[in-house]
Amino acid sequence: MSDKLAVARRCADAMWDKDQASQALGIKVEVPAAGTAVAKMKVRADMLNGLDVCHGGLVFALADTAFAFACNAYDEQTVAAAAQIEFLRPAMLDDRLVATAVEDHRGRKYGYYTVEVRNQSDTLVALFRGRAAGTGKSMLSG
Amino acid sequence: MSDKLAVARRCADAMWDKDQASQALGIKVEVPAAGTAVAKMKVRADMLNGLDVCHGGLVFALADTAFAFACNAYDEQTVAAAAQIEFLRPAMLDDRLVATAVEDHRGRKYGYYTVEVRNQSDTLVALFRGRAAGTGKSMLSG
Amino acid sequence: MSDKLAVARRCADAMWDKDQASQALGIKVEVPAAGTAVAKMKVRADMLNGLDVCHGGLVFALADTAFAFACNAYDEQTVAAAAQIEFLRPAMLDDRLVATAVEDHRGRKYGYYTVEVRNQSDTLVALFRGRAAGTGKSMLSG
Amino acid sequence: MSDKLAVARRCADAMWDKDQASQALGIKVEVPAAGTAVAKMKVRADMLNGLDVCHGGLVFALADTAFAFACNAYDEQTVAAAAQIEFLRPAMLDDRLVATAVEDHRGRKYGYYTVEVRNQSDTLVALFRGRAAGTGKSMLSG
Repeated sequence: MSDKLAVARRCADAMWDKDQASQALGIKVEVPAAGTAVAKMKVRADMLNGLDVCHGGLVFALADTAFAFACNAYDEQTVAAAAQIEFLRPAMLDDRLVATAVEDHRGRKYGYYTVEVRNQSDTLVALFRGRAAGTGKSMLSG
Repeated sequence: MSDKLAVARRCADAMWDKDQASQALGIKVEVPAAGTAVAKMKVRADMLNGLDVCHGGLVFALADTAFAFACNAYDEQTVAAAAQIEFLRPAMLDDRLVATAVEDHRGRKYGYYTVEVRNQSDTLVALFRGRAAGTGKSMLSG
Repeated sequence: MSDKLAVARRCADAMWDKDQASQALGIKVEVPAAGTAVAKMKVRADMLNGLDVCHGGLVFALADTAFAFACNAYDEQTVAAAAQIEFLRPAMLDDRLVATAVEDHRGRKYGYYTVEVRNQSDTLVALFRGRAAGTGKSMLSG
Repeated sequence: MSDKLAVARRCADAMWDKDQASQALGIKVEVPAAGTAVAKMKVRADMLNGLDVCHGGLVFALADTAFAFACNAYDEQTVAAAAQIEFLRPAMLDDRLVATAVEDHRGRKYGYYTVEVRNQSDTLVALFRGRAAGTGKSMLSG
């Protein structure tokens, strides 16, 4: 494993232990490479909205978790500054959603990420774009 | 109460009963007028992320709920097609968040809404913009 | 006229003299109050795209000019950091477009603005949202 | 040349002849593959705004042209429904800007594209995301 990936995974471990929100949603996260992340979530009954589909906010939350683990790979605490999501198809009860985050550009002030959320049929459910801002604080020696 | 508001509230009631996601997040919703909605949520420990602030996805979810109740006021099942959120300040444990949705424009195909999320100090936490698409199906006689 | 409006108009005058782009597009700008602006443009033949409607980039440019004059009202040079536009209807040759910018929120770091672009029938052509960032430099004593 | 690329280029030629706006801006377009496009523009004096940098609307217009030629590759007239742009760095007089559009996803109703705008130093100036909607009309037999 490269040093870069090792740092990314140590950051992910440090975040994960405290990430009660993602844990409560049953999300699982993997960091295949620095600047990327894969987050998985099964749509539970308590995630459905008034139209009997997965609440868009929880699809967003899944994507946002993938985004957070992708952008927090460099031992600098980094927060979401903004995000945009397109809902292409509804996610249904028991769907197994997979959110894959990749880094489009990492500049001086901001990083830009795209997250695709797909269901178990590999159909695109949502397309998410996030802008991340570094805080200047270390993640690992914080 | 105007007929228009009465319809909006009947739609809200119909949605609310099935909206397990918003209920699980402890959200409360009011519909002061057709095309508007106010949703409230207290930030719980199980809503915190790896940086000890409220998971951005759950701030989004609160705004998205307000958006859903604002746009589903006309007895037509209406879904979120896209949304954009700016995170201005973190929300902290026990913060009492209030999301207020207003209708900017309701056109033939889409409706456009702005949601402000404020904390108990009336400070703006997030600014959300949503695009809603009607499905052509009735909400009340569905 | 309030002092605030007087400053806004002096900033507008200072910008306008150098704004060759807006002048070349035949745009006219008014600043009715600090934080707002109205920009007008007639769609010329050299603004049409390959589908015989006004190039979306020029509709955006009109909205962006209104945005720039709305956010540069406080004697601080302020630039567009990001913007989002929804194209609701095409603008046609000879349409007289009016872009009206209002300030949604002005925070410590960023200002948020909405611009509506309407045609001569008062039909909404585009809905624009901009995020402005102050540079810390004076506009008037620069 | 593949049939697919041949169609894309015939569509591009058909659009280009009528695209007075892109021509007036001095833009040049190439279509290296269906679903992609490269558009180039030199920043002229009449493109500068009141802060002496290239008007953001014209940076957007360049990206939008690349987007239009990328999404109009399939012999169906396709229009921009929405777009989002992040301005990372100003573009200056005489800068030679290159906008490269790629297709992120092409679904039933909408196509999603990313356009990077870089200057002559290959520095990212703007990051653009567009949503395109097909009209159902042929481009070539129209």
